[in-house]
Amino acid sequence: MTAAAPLPAGPEGRDLYRLVEELYPLCRSITGDGVRQTLKIIQRHAPIDIHEVPSGTAVLDWTVPREWNVRDAWIADPSGARVIDFRRSNLHLVSYSVPVRARMPFSALRPHLHTLPEHPDWIPYRTSYYDETWGFCLTQRQLEALPPDGEYEVCVDTTLEPGSLSYGELVLPGETEDEILISSHVCHPSLADDNLSGIAVSAFLARHLGARARRRHTFRFVYAPGTIGAITWLAQNRERARRVRHGLTLTCLGDAHPFTYKRTLAGGAEIDRAAAHALAHSGLAHQSIDFFPYGYDERQYNSPGFRLPVGSLMRGRHGQFPEYHTSADDLSFVSPERLAESWTVLATMLDVLEGNGRYRNLAPDGEPQLGRRGLYRAVGGTDIPGLQLAMLWVLSLSDGEHTLLDAAERAKMPFRAIRGAADLLEQHGLLAPV
Amino acid sequence: MTAAAPLPAGPEGRDLYRLVEELYPLCRSITGDGVRQTLKIIQRHAPIDIHEVPSGTAVLDWTVPREWNVRDAWIADPSGARVIDFRRSNLHLVSYSVPVRARMPFSALRPHLHTLPEHPDWIPYRTSYYDETWGFCLTQRQLEALPPDGEYEVCVDTTLEPGSLSYGELVLPGETEDEILISSHVCHPSLADDNLSGIAVSAFLARHLGARARRRHTFRFVYAPGTIGAITWLAQNRERARRVRHGLTLTCLGDAHPFTYKRTLAGGAEIDRAAAHALAHSGLAHQSIDFFPYGYDERQYNSPGFRLPVGSLMRGRHGQFPEYHTSADDLSFVSPERLAESWTVLATMLDVLEGNGRYRNLAPDGEPQLGRRGLYRAVGGTDIPGLQLAMLWVLSLSDGEHTLLDAAERAKMPFRAIRGAADLLEQHGLLAPV
Amino acid sequence: MTAAAPLPAGPEGRDLYRLVEELYPLCRSITGDGVRQTLKIIQRHAPIDIHEVPSGTAVLDWTVPREWNVRDAWIADPSGARVIDFRRSNLHLVSYSVPVRARMPFSALRPHLHTLPEHPDWIPYRTSYYDETWGFCLTQRQLEALPPDGEYEVCVDTTLEPGSLSYGELVLPGETEDEILISSHVCHPSLADDNLSGIAVSAFLARHLGARARRRHTFRFVYAPGTIGAITWLAQNRERARRVRHGLTLTCLGDAHPFTYKRTLAGGAEIDRAAAHALAHSGLAHQSIDFFPYGYDERQYNSPGFRLPVGSLMRGRHGQFPEYHTSADDLSFVSPERLAESWTVLATMLDVLEGNGRYRNLAPDGEPQLGRRGLYRAVGGTDIPGLQLAMLWVLSLSDGEHTLLDAAERAKMPFRAIRGAADLLEQHGLLAPV
Repeated sequence: MTAAAPLPAGPEGRDLYRLVEELYPLCRSITGDGVRQTLKIIQRHAPIDIHEVPSGTAVLDWTVPREWNVRDAWIADPSGARVIDFRRSNLHLVSYSVPVRARMPFSALRPHLHTLPEHPDWIPYRTSYYDETWGFCLTQRQLEALPPDGEYEVCVDTTLEPGSLSYGELVLPGETEDEILISSHVCHPSLADDNLSGIAVSAFLARHLGARARRRHTFRFVYAPGTIGAITWLAQNRERARRVRHGLTLTCLGDAHPFTYKRTLAGGAEIDRAAAHALAHSGLAHQSIDFFPYGYDERQYNSPGFRLPVGSLMRGRHGQFPEYHTSADDLSFVSPERLAESWTVLATMLDVLEGNGRYRNLAPDGEPQLGRRGLYRAVGGTDIPGLQLAMLWVLSLSDGEHTLLDAAERAKMPFRAIRGAADLLEQHGLLAPV
Repeated sequence: MTAAAPLPAGPEGRDLYRLVEELYPLCRSITGDGVRQTLKIIQRHAPIDIHEVPSGTAVLDWTVPREWNVRDAWIADPSGARVIDFRRSNLHLVSYSVPVRARMPFSALRPHLHTLPEHPDWIPYRTSYYDETWGFCLTQRQLEALPPDGEYEVCVDTTLEPGSLSYGELVLPGETEDEILISSHVCHPSLADDNLSGIAVSAFLARHLGARARRRHTFRFVYAPGTIGAITWLAQNRERARRVRHGLTLTCLGDAHPFTYKRTLAGGAEIDRAAAHALAHSGLAHQSIDFFPYGYDERQYNSPGFRLPVGSLMRGRHGQFPEYHTSADDLSFVSPERLAESWTVLATMLDVLEGNGRYRNLAPDGEPQLGRRGLYRAVGGTDIPGLQLAMLWVLSLSDGEHTLLDAAERAKMPFRAIRGAADLLEQHGLLAPV
Repeated sequence: MTAAAPLPAGPEGRDLYRLVEELYPLCRSITGDGVRQTLKIIQRHAPIDIHEVPSGTAVLDWTVPREWNVRDAWIADPSGARVIDFRRSNLHLVSYSVPVRARMPFSALRPHLHTLPEHPDWIPYRTSYYDETWGFCLTQRQLEALPPDGEYEVCVDTTLEPGSLSYGELVLPGETEDEILISSHVCHPSLADDNLSGIAVSAFLARHLGARARRRHTFRFVYAPGTIGAITWLAQNRERARRVRHGLTLTCLGDAHPFTYKRTLAGGAEIDRAAAHALAHSGLAHQSIDFFPYGYDERQYNSPGFRLPVGSLMRGRHGQFPEYHTSADDLSFVSPERLAESWTVLATMLDVLEGNGRYRNLAPDGEPQLGRRGLYRAVGGTDIPGLQLAMLWVLSLSDGEHTLLDAAERAKMPFRAIRGAADLLEQHGLLAPV
């Protein structure tokens, strides 16, 4: 008899980690060359298209902003020493800071400085996309070491000019136009878990699925800046978005926290059940939480005008761990093992979605005689092997209404065992898809 | 930005308590001058109408009984001492006792005496509305002190004659004919918690709502004797009763027990959810229990012929605390603080009902750009203020199907915070009622 | 006032046990004289019909097999001693063993021997209905005592010839054609709990119900071999099967385990609720478990082509206790007391199904005045007797949609109390069936 389909064979954790490492130094924001370079590096793993949407384009309720790029940024203290320097960490500069070149006393500089007093050695990550200002992020210890007297020199050598917003997209056509959307935000500078981990896992999933001979769903991978990127994609794909049957945003998938799956707004969507099932059978610590309208781009996809059933998989929850949005979210905060676990959990979820469906038992009156088809043990005893029980579950629920995932949930068996039993029954003419 | 609507500013607990004190000495029953005087005292606080329904009027399956009034009632022992005297406590006389003036031995008197052996210093409260008899209630110690020999003299100087049943009613018109019914029973003699507490809280709610410039619902306050009074009101308002969208009976609201909310028969009505929400956010101990067809007039309102969604709010549960229906339910059993808490919880529930509704997000595709409308913080960090989160919840759920109460429940935020966010969004043209 | 209907008066446990004793020695299988004799003994208690279905008859996806009978079976060791003998225990022979008469060394015999190493004194029960082979079951100690050298003689003197499959059936007509099906498997040899206990309880239920003057449902009792027998019955009663509104399979009802009720496939059927109710009010330990497509003939009845709402009542769960399908399931494993308890629980379930229904309160507006009909206590106090509360529950829920079982569940009262209250209300013209 056919054994249950094996777990998807995934990439090595070290390959996932290497991609995170490669992307780490780039200075990303919601626009600019850092995003473009990031997308080009992704292209080495999966053949994504890079789209450029001009500044000023109206997208839903928003407008694509001017493009932001950084040449240099620093603060020199009264002695002339460059005490804060963008080249040492791109987190030092508030994202979308407008250009400035000025000398000023500490009192004038101080309102532009951001620190984390409770973590005196970490640099915070701050943005000011829609308010024209500038600022620097530094450690609390750096702040305390700044002399109060004398004149400081500030250089923010940035450009904020008409350009474009860049995003990446890969469509893997399937047997149907029903789509599965995998979306990852690409707008954060040197933060490893948020979201180079999500980008890396997504890129390797795209490569894996692209290599498949057969896909039931069409898969769409989107790599776009948070909020404005997802809004731009939605604005440009209003009709195509209606085909999304299941979706996920990916974030913070490399840290050591247990998994958290955030459900779609309605809850109870097939992606919600697939996620719960894959996590329950992963043997890994996890929780599922209800949707809330804050977090990453699941906010946009689930908005009233679209209501796409998009959940979110993460390990650490945004805003819930101290390293979040600080320089402590560095390469030591993520690991090859956790990245590989995340890939496997996601691949299992996608296999559930790909393999699920409604079937009809073709010998529905009583149980078919499996024994004469060689599908049942010969000598009756007290227990029953798993595959036979899986077949009985599939036969019992295949009434055209229940799905294979229903069977897996009720049987408390991994989906791939139920899917394997269904394959065997189809081969023996006992089962047909509805 | 607008802050969330504040908690309703309520009356002082001492004003509620003073009304309880004023009503306490009166001898009420299901008819008679005690009820009439009670209603007149309520009129000083809220402009209720007093309705009189003649004895003999057919009301649903019942008939309005003859009116009962008491001039005097006492028992004199063989020495001639008035050992039991209605003038000392109106609980001494079984309510609706028929007139009697007779001399009898203790053995003949004994079957007419009611005590509480387990609480030897308390007088029980007993009624005999539909069985023509008479009786006295006394403490166990009084009973034990009665000499067994000699002749007793009994005086029950009552009248039971054609008259009328009195009830009070106040209608506060609103923008719609949809009604909220607040019903309190007024048939108990000197029992403070049951139900002078309910009457006092109701009267102050009526005054508060009457002073409002704008009411969405029409409010109807009913003050009627238990069972026969509610039945009489229903009989005379068959059609108007159909307009009741939400209702509450009020009882035992001045004692120190945690709150108990008893759900409507169907459960899951909007009043059930409003009550659960107000209690959950009150910070006070509480429980919700399922409907059962015993208790106060929620029985009548929820009957199959009407099925009005009427729940019941109480603190101590009828029959579940020892002081219930005894002389221990006196002025020391209730307190200004507890009465004021009850008023606030009820006012919060009513505000939920008044403020709830379905809305439509007018920028439903993705999130609207709150920042350019001055509704969002400028510099992005790791957390989000409550009002912004409340706006995101309202925008996210305002699809014409979910209500603001749905949003408050899912957000685990007080309704007034959600309502405040909705007001702000309406002002900015982002939200409209359905 | 009428008291609540009493618990059904059942048979003595010793009478149930005596039937188990009488049936115990017979060698049953899925066909053959042992089944026929079993059915004839049942006829002494309940007037069942015995049906014979010829070998070779096509039944759903199956074919009625040849009939199997045993004249003798033994193994003689090299010394000629009959070390394993069917006449000492019919479990020694694998059911449906084909005839053999041969001499062979131990090495050739060994693959035909089945033991339970973990229970060295017990004989296992094994079958080989559809694979033409033979075998013996013996204790592990017997196996270990067999000398390894020399020649063994094996005699399996069975017949496997065209004949018929036998099953018993009793139909007790009721006022409606809606049927309650009680099905027990009769294919096991000397195993007391599985399933002589089920057969005995079923036979005494049939006798009890047959003696009733009035039955609302038509009752159908089926005594058939497991799997192939139920499939044969379904094949021959395709149309009649559609009338089954509620059903139960009975098994393992004499042991000392707590009750287990296994729900129908859909769950939430009236039989599921009746079972849960009867068990909850039995005062006996019990659990309810969801359907799974393994076990006894509930598998066939619930199959997609029929979907009959058939649950299963058992004490020990098949495969979950060590004595299951071994010689330790003997007469000492079952007791009169447990059999009688099982009978009572089942009779209570059936009474719920018989007595349940939707009613209409004929005085639905408010509460009817029970007092003037003599249905309510005269003097009001703080509590209320159970019968009055039961009447209030029935009146409150009798809106043509709720059932009496709904009322019993919500009231947390035994169904017979609610049913008694409904009878009283019907007598007083306050209630009518829908």
